[in-house]
Amino acid sequence: MGNSFGNIYKFTVFGQSHAPAIGVTIEGLPAGEKIDMEAIQSFLDRRAPGGKYSTSRKEADKVEILAGFNSAGLSCGSPITAIIRNTDTRSKDYSYLENVPRPGHSDYPAMVKYGEGRDYFGGGQFSGRLTAPMCIAGSIALQMLEKMGIKITSHIVSIGGETDEEAMFALIEKVKDEGDSVGGIIECIAEGVPVGVGEGMFGGLENRIAQAAFGIPAVKGIEFGAGMAAGTMRGSENNDEFYMDGDKVKTRGNNHGGILGGMSSGMPIVFRVAIKPTPSIAIEQHSVDLSKGENTTLSVHGRHDPCIAPRALPCVESAMAVAIYDAILESM
Amino acid sequence: MGNSFGNIYKFTVFGQSHAPAIGVTIEGLPAGEKIDMEAIQSFLDRRAPGGKYSTSRKEADKVEILAGFNSAGLSCGSPITAIIRNTDTRSKDYSYLENVPRPGHSDYPAMVKYGEGRDYFGGGQFSGRLTAPMCIAGSIALQMLEKMGIKITSHIVSIGGETDEEAMFALIEKVKDEGDSVGGIIECIAEGVPVGVGEGMFGGLENRIAQAAFGIPAVKGIEFGAGMAAGTMRGSENNDEFYMDGDKVKTRGNNHGGILGGMSSGMPIVFRVAIKPTPSIAIEQHSVDLSKGENTTLSVHGRHDPCIAPRALPCVESAMAVAIYDAILESM
Amino acid sequence: MGNSFGNIYKFTVFGQSHAPAIGVTIEGLPAGEKIDMEAIQSFLDRRAPGGKYSTSRKEADKVEILAGFNSAGLSCGSPITAIIRNTDTRSKDYSYLENVPRPGHSDYPAMVKYGEGRDYFGGGQFSGRLTAPMCIAGSIALQMLEKMGIKITSHIVSIGGETDEEAMFALIEKVKDEGDSVGGIIECIAEGVPVGVGEGMFGGLENRIAQAAFGIPAVKGIEFGAGMAAGTMRGSENNDEFYMDGDKVKTRGNNHGGILGGMSSGMPIVFRVAIKPTPSIAIEQHSVDLSKGENTTLSVHGRHDPCIAPRALPCVESAMAVAIYDAILESM
Amino acid sequence: MGNSFGNIYKFTVFGQSHAPAIGVTIEGLPAGEKIDMEAIQSFLDRRAPGGKYSTSRKEADKVEILAGFNSAGLSCGSPITAIIRNTDTRSKDYSYLENVPRPGHSDYPAMVKYGEGRDYFGGGQFSGRLTAPMCIAGSIALQMLEKMGIKITSHIVSIGGETDEEAMFALIEKVKDEGDSVGGIIECIAEGVPVGVGEGMFGGLENRIAQAAFGIPAVKGIEFGAGMAAGTMRGSENNDEFYMDGDKVKTRGNNHGGILGGMSSGMPIVFRVAIKPTPSIAIEQHSVDLSKGENTTLSVHGRHDPCIAPRALPCVESAMAVAIYDAILESM
Repeated sequence: MGNSFGNIYKFTVFGQSHAPAIGVTIEGLPAGEKIDMEAIQSFLDRRAPGGKYSTSRKEADKVEILAGFNSAGLSCGSPITAIIRNTDTRSKDYSYLENVPRPGHSDYPAMVKYGEGRDYFGGGQFSGRLTAPMCIAGSIALQMLEKMGIKITSHIVSIGGETDEEAMFALIEKVKDEGDSVGGIIECIAEGVPVGVGEGMFGGLENRIAQAAFGIPAVKGIEFGAGMAAGTMRGSENNDEFYMDGDKVKTRGNNHGGILGGMSSGMPIVFRVAIKPTPSIAIEQHSVDLSKGENTTLSVHGRHDPCIAPRALPCVESAMAVAIYDAILESM
Repeated sequence: MGNSFGNIYKFTVFGQSHAPAIGVTIEGLPAGEKIDMEAIQSFLDRRAPGGKYSTSRKEADKVEILAGFNSAGLSCGSPITAIIRNTDTRSKDYSYLENVPRPGHSDYPAMVKYGEGRDYFGGGQFSGRLTAPMCIAGSIALQMLEKMGIKITSHIVSIGGETDEEAMFALIEKVKDEGDSVGGIIECIAEGVPVGVGEGMFGGLENRIAQAAFGIPAVKGIEFGAGMAAGTMRGSENNDEFYMDGDKVKTRGNNHGGILGGMSSGMPIVFRVAIKPTPSIAIEQHSVDLSKGENTTLSVHGRHDPCIAPRALPCVESAMAVAIYDAILESM
Repeated sequence: MGNSFGNIYKFTVFGQSHAPAIGVTIEGLPAGEKIDMEAIQSFLDRRAPGGKYSTSRKEADKVEILAGFNSAGLSCGSPITAIIRNTDTRSKDYSYLENVPRPGHSDYPAMVKYGEGRDYFGGGQFSGRLTAPMCIAGSIALQMLEKMGIKITSHIVSIGGETDEEAMFALIEKVKDEGDSVGGIIECIAEGVPVGVGEGMFGGLENRIAQAAFGIPAVKGIEFGAGMAAGTMRGSENNDEFYMDGDKVKTRGNNHGGILGGMSSGMPIVFRVAIKPTPSIAIEQHSVDLSKGENTTLSVHGRHDPCIAPRALPCVESAMAVAIYDAILESM
Repeated sequence: MGNSFGNIYKFTVFGQSHAPAIGVTIEGLPAGEKIDMEAIQSFLDRRAPGGKYSTSRKEADKVEILAGFNSAGLSCGSPITAIIRNTDTRSKDYSYLENVPRPGHSDYPAMVKYGEGRDYFGGGQFSGRLTAPMCIAGSIALQMLEKMGIKITSHIVSIGGETDEEAMFALIEKVKDEGDSVGGIIECIAEGVPVGVGEGMFGGLENRIAQAAFGIPAVKGIEFGAGMAAGTMRGSENNDEFYMDGDKVKTRGNNHGGILGGMSSGMPIVFRVAIKPTPSIAIEQHSVDLSKGENTTLSVHGRHDPCIAPRALPCVESAMAVAIYDAILESM
């Protein structure tokens, strides 16, 4: 059941990097809603490969809607399925990975878990490419949230520890030239979420957003508001005091990241995720050949991003959007 | 649906701080299993109030099993329900909180969300007390994991930034005297998890553990392996290279925290959570009186922990245990 | 996951006939709702043993609410747990059933499935007694439906083929004297359900009501409107033609049982269930002794109803109520 | 959530009669399984239109697998998505139905429920055509069951009350000539199911099979074993006595339909469903024009089956297959 997310706005991501298609089946969008299909495509284009700092794999990543809308273009209350055809699948690039797992990649546990069923071409179902259908679900959720006056944005906080924008991109160039890769930190903010969204213990906004965000393969940590730093603070420092701003209740700081007791407080919802450096690097690394039970080395050829963080922005926004939209539907 | 966790080993936590009882209903434990009831009680006692550095509220927190076992003490394949009676519920302590939300607490969104339905005595369903039934589910999962050779432990990494044990507890004493509180960082480790546990995109171990861990009210961040620091690293540095240790595949480091592609790699599973400082402090804080729409101040009386981290250890272990055990059952 | 029902109004029935308690944990009741606790008790009393035509087992079946309401008696948005203590558990009555399965009862598959974990006292988790907590969930759903102007009633259509009321009860007396039992047909009707309640393919009202109704151990068939007879009819005969009744759309007949395409049509929702004769009878029957692998005979002693249909009425109403209420919450 | 079925083998049917495609997304098939794609196609062909007694709509109904298998044709542990393109969608045929609901059809509640979002072409998501993707999920489940030695078959018991095969088909010819339609009864049998499959109260085999079977639009009743007739029987007559057949436990009759306490007994699992007569008939019927609030008449043109029962056989087998396969996976 791992490829599904959500309780009401519930979707299942399917596909492998080199299967005929990748896509998503979404239940729970109310009937009668107009969705801007071009906005979905534009949103997806933000995570598409082809940019200066990303893999040279070129794919249109053209979204095709198969079901869920009537002839007037309104949602009909039945599941939406949207797919993206895999058109540029140079399977031969990956065949040497059959027995030698790439460090930092899903290869080794996938080999053990799936045995002969494993699809190792392009990372199979573990490919970062699967975040594209997640972004389809995300874009639809974002459009629905926008109708409610909720806006979600994200930005890169740092790359490889650099926080200056020029330094960030210089670093990406540098590691690219070195055949290496580098990680980054992304911050995502939702404004306009009404007070009280989010359900009990395991259904709070933090739980949901975290569950969604770790669906992005490279994410290794998530923190809300003050986050990990809250562990170093005093209550008198970390508590965000309330005050009346006209007839609105606000807090002076936002160490709580807009979430109290799992519920939205009316303040901006803020989280940061760590995006680990792309594990596929050209630099030679030690690994093992499982067909022989021997140590070996490999250097990963093919088309890989030196830093995945820029392309991950719409994915992170999608994680926020699907989690909040689902929670709103559940709270109604 | 927020109070439920899990797909196969599925449980629902119920109760409020001052309801007749708190407890948990658990589905999915296989039939015929012997569970050590005294071990559940001992495990719970680790999180119970009454220690030197914790609230002075004294409750036996005696676990009572209502259903799920046959006369031979074996699980019968039907749900388990276990409760803890609330015996020491000084409701009057909390009545002044009806209209004035405590900074850092769930009070304000709960007021807005639940209106007249709100149970504000002792934090209602948002009380940290609700982690006790979570620990019942956790203890049973831990016992099942132990039968499979899996061991989960946790420890405090730091309190208020202090990493030295003596300094930590000196700091707790200090903030207690000041009517303040302090946060901490906990690390939790699972050893012996077989390779390949964890399902796709949203059902990976990180997603599940995070969803469970944010069920502990004070948690504001979670990171696996190198965690947030992965965002500052290079691929050549962050990738954990594979090698053969006899006939076992291992990695040289554990920046991946024992999880690759959402699946266990065979290395220890390691995560850290930030526990925010207890929001209830005696120091006077600004807040608002919602009955009047005016600014006011409050200082929180009652029995509160200066630092919740020590009592949170079994809760964090429970989060790890229920997530891994559920994933194992799903992977079988 | 078999003991849970519902998507939004979601409950889990727990307990065994001779465990400390039976009960139910309910998620999804909106906050701020007043529930009449005495009405729950009265509703349960309708299915309680002790009547003229039922088992002589006497139990108060007193409902105890453990969680889910605030001090003002309003639902607080957290799960409700209600239990009934098992007080009259003459376990010795059942010990002879350890190895000899009763014909028509769950004993044999339960033995094979659960092995040493099996709880065979009083039928364990398969006891009809478990319909009591189902009726708690049902009574709360009925109260919520009533607030919306929806009324659910049920009646016995026939017992042992007899449709005349006096003949029915004479037959029950007769089979009781003979140490036998007899089945019956119950019809259940919901009036006032708004048009359009019910979701797609597997979430239609028929699917949901059927899933709930087969939760009553004795039910072996269910039919909506014309039901099984629809298989013998022509379209021109079975189709219920629409007409305007003032400004309301109605149908002339109700062969569709108030459900079209899984959705409510605004006409009364009508279904019938077959309640099989109680399998526990005093008449000697053939069975097998599984400890010896030999044929044997048994006659079932203990306290058993000659006809379960009268006591099943509130259970059938509960099945209708929980299914419709859950569908309404999902449709909103 | 209405278009999804199952707990472990979990699938979501999507599509509308005149959307670009219909299809299904399936989670929970274990990795490494060989599935015979031609067998899926052949199975679907059994329900395809075009036969002598069915609609003249001609569509290849060619199954296209988009995801879930590796290059060796083995399931890869990720969701399977399969689609069927809608190629013959004469939308003009249906436009006159915008405001006049067909008696016996989902039109009226769909109008009210979905408003402008309603897709009324060809019945939209309520079209019997949606049983095709259900049959894809069914065929895969059947193949998995077959590997375990479980065989599912079905046959027509009666059509319009006729049980003789020649009389049945003569009757279909007759009603077709009259512009009418006729219902039927189908029986479905599963042999080889091991003892003990099926979970508690709402997760028993009857609950699951019923939930799946009512997913077939025309089904209005379902009964297991003796079924509705059990309501007319005595315990001594309805109970199936056990005996040893060599070292196997069997029952003399099968009034229990192979299910006791929701669990398989080892005897054949047997159920019957009533298939109502196709509501779309050429004979003029009374209805209402909702745009005017007036009574009117309509006769339904287009391509319709005089009797859907023959084409429903693989759908009924699919309902049995998905329910049993899911329960087996859950019981393991």
